[in-house]
Amino acid sequence: MKNTIYPFGTLQYIPIFYVIWSDDLLSVSETNVVINALNQDELLPEEDKIVLKEWLDRKNPPSDSELKKWKQLISSSKVKLIESETYPLTSFSKKLVVAYGYESILNENIKQIEINLGIQPNHYNHLFDVEIVHKKTSNYYNSLEIDTILKADHSKEIDSFRKFLSDPIFQWDIQRDKEKFREKVLSQVKILANKGYGAMAYPKEYGGTGNMPVYASIFENLIYVDASLTVKFGVQFGLFGGSVQKLGTKQHHDTYLSDTGKAKLLGCFAMTETGHGSNVRGVKTTATYDKKTDTITIHTPGKNDNKEYIGNALHSTMASVFAQLIVNGKNEGVHAILVPIRNEKHQLMKGVSIEDNGYKLGLNGVDNGKIWFNQVKVPRENLLNKYGSITKDGNYYSDIKNPSKRFFTMLGTLVGGRICVAKGAISGAKLSLAIAVKHALQRRQFNDNIKIQEDLLMDYPSHQLRLTPEIASSYVYHVTMDHMMKLYSDETITDKRKIETQAAGLKAIITDFANDTIQECREACGGKGYLIENRIADLKGDVDIFTTFEGDNTVLLQLAAKGILADFKTEFNSAGFSSVLRLVGAQISDKLATINPLYINKVDKDHLYNPKFHKHAFNYRTRRLTYTLAMRIRDYIKKGVPSYQAFLKVQTHLLALGKAYSIELAYETFTNFTDNISDEKNRLLFQKLGTLYALHEIRKDTGWYLEQGYIGGTKSKAIRQRVERLCTELRPHIEVLVDGFGIPEHCITAPIAN
Amino acid sequence: MKNTIYPFGTLQYIPIFYVIWSDDLLSVSETNVVINALNQDELLPEEDKIVLKEWLDRKNPPSDSELKKWKQLISSSKVKLIESETYPLTSFSKKLVVAYGYESILNENIKQIEINLGIQPNHYNHLFDVEIVHKKTSNYYNSLEIDTILKADHSKEIDSFRKFLSDPIFQWDIQRDKEKFREKVLSQVKILANKGYGAMAYPKEYGGTGNMPVYASIFENLIYVDASLTVKFGVQFGLFGGSVQKLGTKQHHDTYLSDTGKAKLLGCFAMTETGHGSNVRGVKTTATYDKKTDTITIHTPGKNDNKEYIGNALHSTMASVFAQLIVNGKNEGVHAILVPIRNEKHQLMKGVSIEDNGYKLGLNGVDNGKIWFNQVKVPRENLLNKYGSITKDGNYYSDIKNPSKRFFTMLGTLVGGRICVAKGAISGAKLSLAIAVKHALQRRQFNDNIKIQEDLLMDYPSHQLRLTPEIASSYVYHVTMDHMMKLYSDETITDKRKIETQAAGLKAIITDFANDTIQECREACGGKGYLIENRIADLKGDVDIFTTFEGDNTVLLQLAAKGILADFKTEFNSAGFSSVLRLVGAQISDKLATINPLYINKVDKDHLYNPKFHKHAFNYRTRRLTYTLAMRIRDYIKKGVPSYQAFLKVQTHLLALGKAYSIELAYETFTNFTDNISDEKNRLLFQKLGTLYALHEIRKDTGWYLEQGYIGGTKSKAIRQRVERLCTELRPHIEVLVDGFGIPEHCITAPIAN
Repeated sequence: MKNTIYPFGTLQYIPIFYVIWSDDLLSVSETNVVINALNQDELLPEEDKIVLKEWLDRKNPPSDSELKKWKQLISSSKVKLIESETYPLTSFSKKLVVAYGYESILNENIKQIEINLGIQPNHYNHLFDVEIVHKKTSNYYNSLEIDTILKADHSKEIDSFRKFLSDPIFQWDIQRDKEKFREKVLSQVKILANKGYGAMAYPKEYGGTGNMPVYASIFENLIYVDASLTVKFGVQFGLFGGSVQKLGTKQHHDTYLSDTGKAKLLGCFAMTETGHGSNVRGVKTTATYDKKTDTITIHTPGKNDNKEYIGNALHSTMASVFAQLIVNGKNEGVHAILVPIRNEKHQLMKGVSIEDNGYKLGLNGVDNGKIWFNQVKVPRENLLNKYGSITKDGNYYSDIKNPSKRFFTMLGTLVGGRICVAKGAISGAKLSLAIAVKHALQRRQFNDNIKIQEDLLMDYPSHQLRLTPEIASSYVYHVTMDHMMKLYSDETITDKRKIETQAAGLKAIITDFANDTIQECREACGGKGYLIENRIADLKGDVDIFTTFEGDNTVLLQLAAKGILADFKTEFNSAGFSSVLRLVGAQISDKLATINPLYINKVDKDHLYNPKFHKHAFNYRTRRLTYTLAMRIRDYIKKGVPSYQAFLKVQTHLLALGKAYSIELAYETFTNFTDNISDEKNRLLFQKLGTLYALHEIRKDTGWYLEQGYIGGTKSKAIRQRVERLCTELRPHIEVLVDGFGIPEHCITAPIAN
Repeated sequence: MKNTIYPFGTLQYIPIFYVIWSDDLLSVSETNVVINALNQDELLPEEDKIVLKEWLDRKNPPSDSELKKWKQLISSSKVKLIESETYPLTSFSKKLVVAYGYESILNENIKQIEINLGIQPNHYNHLFDVEIVHKKTSNYYNSLEIDTILKADHSKEIDSFRKFLSDPIFQWDIQRDKEKFREKVLSQVKILANKGYGAMAYPKEYGGTGNMPVYASIFENLIYVDASLTVKFGVQFGLFGGSVQKLGTKQHHDTYLSDTGKAKLLGCFAMTETGHGSNVRGVKTTATYDKKTDTITIHTPGKNDNKEYIGNALHSTMASVFAQLIVNGKNEGVHAILVPIRNEKHQLMKGVSIEDNGYKLGLNGVDNGKIWFNQVKVPRENLLNKYGSITKDGNYYSDIKNPSKRFFTMLGTLVGGRICVAKGAISGAKLSLAIAVKHALQRRQFNDNIKIQEDLLMDYPSHQLRLTPEIASSYVYHVTMDHMMKLYSDETITDKRKIETQAAGLKAIITDFANDTIQECREACGGKGYLIENRIADLKGDVDIFTTFEGDNTVLLQLAAKGILADFKTEFNSAGFSSVLRLVGAQISDKLATINPLYINKVDKDHLYNPKFHKHAFNYRTRRLTYTLAMRIRDYIKKGVPSYQAFLKVQTHLLALGKAYSIELAYETFTNFTDNISDEKNRLLFQKLGTLYALHEIRKDTGWYLEQGYIGGTKSKAIRQRVERLCTELRPHIEVLVDGFGIPEHCITAPIAN
């Protein structure tokens, strides 16, 4: 191909002149930069110099037809701009002249212009028609395939729901006024209800599909719209509706469930009190049965005994109130009673007082309030009586004679909410990660002073290390909580106590993980992450409280640990000799592991990447913490310390056990899942994510492992290096990995992610 | 003393009846509880039973005069209610009858009432005239004395300023609308200016006192009012005014400084650009000098080159603009130029465009905006020319010939802001801790099912462990940053490079610490911590960005590490043989320490509490990280890896060194300070806080220490136990410790803290 328009001397300057004029980049002083370069170009013929200098006259700039010629010339050359080169424009120029049949020469003067003007590809890449080669990420993997693996059995329902979310009513915007925000969220809830999404988990006869896992998927996807909507949705259909469904009987279902699912009846879940949050068993609200009138009187006795933080409190007409049920002067423990709190005109019922909780750190689209009851009477039938009822002749009756067991059975039915909260938290982490990664694939900062182009944030090792393990963890936790929801919904499993223990621990570590991740993403996006428009700020405020509601994390971890201890005790006591043997055997194998120097400092890749190693490490930690905890408690009790005090003394040990157990469980669940991925390519990817999760978690607790002598210093260092290596290996796939979360594109409204 | 009103049988029931009726605690069913108890009281004479039962008739309650008699009886008895007893009311009753001359008998039936009604001291303690003995905290130490120690040389100024903050204009309230919020903050800034607080750091001739440390104390105390005010104050007087003061010369001072201090001239500090935050040297805004007109043209070349997040952008009439100064076609590097951006009518100047940054996660009382300049001309004199000027004949001149050195000298003058940011962050942590501690000293949750009273949150070991080390750290960092500010303001120290390195690292670890602490406090307060009214939520959103502004923490830690490496290199290269010897010697002593098994597992209290151990541990870490880092970089460079790439490869190592160095520095500074506290009682307390800080920090990095073999597993466990022990030992003094921060009582507006 021969260029018939410009001589060689002029031709080589065309690309840089094109950039300069097309974007009007040139200020007065910058003209000087170009003129200096031209003057110093000794090989440039004088006639070319004259032409080029004329093109630098700001008062008489090159004509539009001239510019068009340049554009045409560049585009017909088929030369590609390579963004990642050190001097992309100089290099382009060099290739351009070759394309037009000249010899390849690097013109130092063009390079000087490029350096001194400091123009970077992101300033001008939009000007070029030619394809720009810049490999920010690999497309070896396919995000749709990954998403399909994550959606598992519910692809159809989830896809249809995500599509539905493109309805303009779900468009995210900045809401500062709580009243307006609440109205918006309420209208969104009603639309979801109309489409049948609210009733999803209820039986068919009440407008639902009986499908709790799909309900949970809807819950988690709603985070991408707005977390206030998620929580409001959860309160109305999951907590209030769930209490009617799970604690009530047929008469309650017939009367309330359909209307609840359609959001015709708005309800709230009045459990927490100002004075009693975590300690539900100690709530002070009383529900006293009066035989004469056959009614139950709901009453708030003291100044701290009002219901508190009750979501939906300002919109609801009914409350599911948890109170001490007193029948014939005897306290039968905590029960839930349906109490109308407003009439059809939305006026408060007699004896009911409600106050707005006001502005919160987040979730200001949810109307949280305080509720007081002053001797409010409701019919006996309003007792949600699946587990405890008052007979027609005015006596209390329950199939479960042990009050403690009865209480925990009632609460146990509400564990689904805890699983949903963890799932929602994961969505918060996913959305933040997607935004932070997409930003880091565009944002450049610093360079080595040789390259024109600055480096992408995503190419900094510290940036990879702060985001990649969190992406891996999101995958692990997603799969884990899907599995938990499956078990929870499985009606063939009648004894759900184990699932409760597990859900408690997992909810705690996952909501903590989500908050840490969102914070990391906020900082990773710098000042941009601080702007509300970029979504991470809101997620931070919203997801924060997930560590507290549906069970405070500190309390839940202790609950989980106590569950593990109880299992341990049962194993020890009931199974007798063989169990003790097994226990002793386990102790020995622990010791073996700790004294085998080969194992302690085994640092080859095969070993460090082997799930057997990870599982052993996690299992060893759980067992060891359980055993030492049990021994410590036994010793205290032997010394005459009361059991309650003994447990207080080992509180931090309990927390450590709760975490260790939950991490082991998550990893086990994830590896079981990945082993069953049929397609090898994706299986290997998922397994790599699992490996990163495992090594990262071991690394986080390396102090403990070293303390125990389970690993040596060399191995600890090797693990740290492997974590860094894995992050780098996953770098080309990082965009696909966040796209694999399946967040609907229309929900990623953050300007920095686009 | 004999009671002449009631017989023994009735008398013993008086306290519980008094509580029941005075607070109207009795519901119908609860009446039954009391009647049952009376019926079962076999020792109670029939006539007493009749009287007592009459007093339970809700339709005919005891008369007011009866109630007065009860009150009088209780109050004259001088019996004290002991909240911490298992059954406080039963016990009170027992002591009451003794006071009136009867025999001491524990009445099981009264105990039954107390148990079944579940009334707790916090329900009724306000009813008693008698003093209530409840030792929540000790008053062995005096918070005023502690505060005086912290205020050091500036007690008078700080006290007077804190008192001034009681002016109603500084009353905190919830602000949701940014426009109103900004107006409020602006008016607060003007009042501070009128009182001379803004100009504090300026020379006397411009309305100041030349006292930068006092300015910094004002800055940090303003956090207690509102962090938006702090930041706005800092932008106006510290950043804008500071740039005039430190980068300008007499003509600028004379023209602008007095008006700036009085807030008559509002200004902003336009450094950061959308495309260039941390990399200030790469800003794209140009300032081109034109000899003909003797003016400088300010211009924003590309779409990402606008100034971004500029505080005070919407209120200002002038900007201190950082731009590439081009004189005679040569780029002389980044300089600051004063650019009028609005006229007296507050209309934008020609060529200036400003956009609001909109809502942010926090600091919504600060008007952050974006600024574009389109060929804006200003006189040559507007160049802040202390370090680089344009002569009358139109040439560039600077005393500092090296452009790099010149750039860092200019930026170095602004390090004061970085110190202030760290100080403000500490205040945020302090306020959160004060609120969380005061809440935890009132809030009760759970008990051992024997006691009536639930346990205080503050008595849970996990709660002590989550708050106490943070309190200790606040003390350490307060003292450290006060010292840094002293050094920074010391004009006898001309070479401030070391202080810059130190301030960079400390700013990073302290702002991270503050954010973690505020988050911990939020969670420690449960749902209450989530309500805006309780202040922690706002602090969380506000202080968050302190990790990013005035230098991103990740970048600052690397800056600090590079400073340390430079020192290391100088030491190694310049000092020659003796230095190398010293280095080798240090290496040997490191090795000695690591192989001496006695040291590795020395766990006695005297050793673990000895500052020598802590200093050695911190110093060992810094030295070891420096040495291995230097070796790694040298190896890369030997292999031909370019220096920039080599530094990228060791980025996480750099971060670790930056942190290690800063922690060592903080501890050193703190121990030097505590050693000089004259009063022994308080010195011991401060030393204990230092010990807790040190052990907690070693514990946090125990993985590294174990990995290096610096400590053994036994010692690591012992350190963990000592941290827990120290928290428990400080438990009785925890309220005094947060009061010692000296936060004005009128600023602690959180309802949960009162």
